[in-house]
Amino acid sequence: MKIITISREFGSGGRELGKRLADALGIPCYDHQIIDLVAEKENLDKAYVANRSEKDIRAFYPTTIARGFSRPNYALQQTIQIMASEQEIIRKLAGESDCVIVGRAADIILSEYKPFRIFVCADELSKLSRCYSRAETDEKMTDKEILRKCREIDRHRASYRSMFTDKKWGLASGYDLCVNTTEKEIKSLIPALTAYINAWYSEEKTK
Amino acid sequence: MKIITISREFGSGGRELGKRLADALGIPCYDHQIIDLVAEKENLDKAYVANRSEKDIRAFYPTTIARGFSRPNYALQQTIQIMASEQEIIRKLAGESDCVIVGRAADIILSEYKPFRIFVCADELSKLSRCYSRAETDEKMTDKEILRKCREIDRHRASYRSMFTDKKWGLASGYDLCVNTTEKEIKSLIPALTAYINAWYSEEKTK
Repeated sequence: MKIITISREFGSGGRELGKRLADALGIPCYDHQIIDLVAEKENLDKAYVANRSEKDIRAFYPTTIARGFSRPNYALQQTIQIMASEQEIIRKLAGESDCVIVGRAADIILSEYKPFRIFVCADELSKLSRCYSRAETDEKMTDKEILRKCREIDRHRASYRSMFTDKKWGLASGYDLCVNTTEKEIKSLIPALTAYINAWYSEEKTK
Repeated sequence: MKIITISREFGSGGRELGKRLADALGIPCYDHQIIDLVAEKENLDKAYVANRSEKDIRAFYPTTIARGFSRPNYALQQTIQIMASEQEIIRKLAGESDCVIVGRAADIILSEYKPFRIFVCADELSKLSRCYSRAETDEKMTDKEILRKCREIDRHRASYRSMFTDKKWGLASGYDLCVNTTEKEIKSLIPALTAYINAWYSEEKTK
């Protein structure tokens, strides 16, 4: 069973890497589709689910006694519901077939499958140029603002992951392989990565 | 030109990985041999050179005014000399042929060669069991003492590296690939790693 999970720094090209790797291996890649499935299942707006996804639910805890647990906290309840639904869908997808799953702490959620866990990173200059090439032409953000945004999203991801494990997000020993995309075209990394994964799984079989 | 550098956490099996990888690729691996060459060149004891190697020279700076720079500081002078000699030898070896070089900030020292930079890591439990299997039978250290020793050696390596670069030791974005050896036999990782490196260099050629 080939379950490959991609954790990634924002701007590192992790999503593209996941997609291209899945194509090379001939298996499906699940990324945004998970959001769509959750939205459908919970009958919620996609953008709303996307906004809640990969966020630490503790951000929605009451912060003062006056806004205590005794009052209904819909934001918290709904975020917990979305999280539960997302986990269920991730487990269902992994149970159906070999696949690549991008983000959403899938490496931890699917630990019983012993997934091959990839972390994708890049240096800041490289992330910056990747963000530029993706941005709409009317988006006007300074380098500083872009990098602040990248770090903020990564902080959310790290915090989300910390709900499931004490292994720190982005720390190499929490993944099987960390791939650095700095100054690389993502597609140029795929042959090497595919070769690694094929050899990894054929080694597993001989055990 | 295939120059592969191995940075490694103490107890992660990085040295064994370097040796086995070099064997698989049919190229030499330089590790302790560098110490021997430095000792020979500087006419110093091998154990003494080994003790000074991969240590931050700032550890040998005078710490009080009374022990100021005006007095000759032989420990500092000799450590600088060993460091310079080590760099010269690393450059010479890399200039001679494709090779794997373990440790000694070779990834930074040889940056003009654009080496393929590997970082080898493992979780603490795995490092502990690797240290046990290596230890002499009369060595009696508690788990806590072993892990303290591992962290101390890694701190020295990080500090040594920080003399050459502002890229933090062990941070994934400073290497091309981070390999996690947790619960793995090193030799089981070699086919995958060899496949990755061969594909990496054949991709480089097509550029």
